[in-house]
Amino acid sequence: MSSIETSPLTRKLRAFVAFSGPELAVLDRLHRRKRAFVPGRDLVQQGQSEQAAYILAEGWVCSYKVQPDGTRQIVDFQIPGDFLGLRSILLHTSDHSVEPIVSIQAAEVLIEDLLEAFSDTPRLAMAILWMASRDEAMVVEHLVGIGRRDAEQRMAHFLLELGARLTLVGMGSRAGYDCPLTQYHLADALGLSAVHVNRVLRKLREDGLVTFRDGRVTFLDHDRLVGLAQFDPAYLEHTGPLLK
Amino acid sequence: MSSIETSPLTRKLRAFVAFSGPELAVLDRLHRRKRAFVPGRDLVQQGQSEQAAYILAEGWVCSYKVQPDGTRQIVDFQIPGDFLGLRSILLHTSDHSVEPIVSIQAAEVLIEDLLEAFSDTPRLAMAILWMASRDEAMVVEHLVGIGRRDAEQRMAHFLLELGARLTLVGMGSRAGYDCPLTQYHLADALGLSAVHVNRVLRKLREDGLVTFRDGRVTFLDHDRLVGLAQFDPAYLEHTGPLLK
Repeated sequence: MSSIETSPLTRKLRAFVAFSGPELAVLDRLHRRKRAFVPGRDLVQQGQSEQAAYILAEGWVCSYKVQPDGTRQIVDFQIPGDFLGLRSILLHTSDHSVEPIVSIQAAEVLIEDLLEAFSDTPRLAMAILWMASRDEAMVVEHLVGIGRRDAEQRMAHFLLELGARLTLVGMGSRAGYDCPLTQYHLADALGLSAVHVNRVLRKLREDGLVTFRDGRVTFLDHDRLVGLAQFDPAYLEHTGPLLK
Repeated sequence: MSSIETSPLTRKLRAFVAFSGPELAVLDRLHRRKRAFVPGRDLVQQGQSEQAAYILAEGWVCSYKVQPDGTRQIVDFQIPGDFLGLRSILLHTSDHSVEPIVSIQAAEVLIEDLLEAFSDTPRLAMAILWMASRDEAMVVEHLVGIGRRDAEQRMAHFLLELGARLTLVGMGSRAGYDCPLTQYHLADALGLSAVHVNRVLRKLREDGLVTFRDGRVTFLDHDRLVGLAQFDPAYLEHTGPLLK
């Protein structure tokens, strides 16, 4: 039980539900089919049916959509504790693809596994619904932010949101976090060119707000960055369990 | 049981789950606290805690976010069979507001009601998770579409998506649907000015694709409109139950 106690998914769901021992055992069982993946091959493929979902245990992945004109748009990045491709087992065909950014460890989850877990503990069903709602809140926040934030604010908001998500699973702090994303990932996710990403990061560094180099994001002035981004983390919901 | 058999929520969830009689009874119980609301007063308020969720039975509402600068952005519209404010009972504070567009009928649902229903039937938990995933797929589709679609395509996509959603709950067809939205709603949701909305609708009408007047959307050439919008309804998932 010691590993499930400290798994990223457990840490994350505990922000919503205070799990009992038997509930943790159910959560542990969801992790039984462990898989390893390397960059360059999609875990989940857009347009395909009968896909599996995964609980990401280690590493980073990106979710993207390919447009009718062939261009690729990154929708979001997933970090340890996140579900990958939950929509791809609930919808007949997956509406997006999922690709590892680094070598990853993930547990495969089928719809039958979820049904079994839900019948053992309805509070887990509620926790997973919470997680899906939090993911939706993030997409809504991005959608609403697009028209409103300039490039600097968008970058600041993005780096702060990632920081808050990583902090919840014990992989970040107000000081910063390790981050394997390239400037191409940032460009694609934020709708900027790579050159523009470079310029924006330089500006944020020169203003003494944040640096991103050698795979590490370092917050130089967290409060001022929050002010610039108008970042309100309420939608990320880290205020302690609603279900005791 | 006859009313729950034909309720919009049942019609909608049946696209995912083939419910048994006892499962329908559980779904019926979720509708027990019926409420009526009129335009001008929010059902759910952004930034407030301890909000209820609702299952919309009759009428239309809009979900919106107020920005730090006071401007209001419509995130989406909800139609009969949709959950209102599901995130507002799962997150400590609601990240959005919900306002009736016309007089509506809705059933109030508390987190305890959902937990009780989930423990009676885990397949209902899975169906509600499907519904939340479908809602997220819609927001993702909007997010990805913003940069890619011009005003005409955005309007065409919007009218087709609403049509597909309404058809699922028996309130629309390939011929069209009744729609209480004003040009101001369309403008706010699509990020256009009201004048621009007017111009775009005139263009679509003159091209023989679709009309929207006197509270009715009429598809003049559904196939050609789908082509213009590059509308692929796969993410709306109407292909029959995954859970038999």
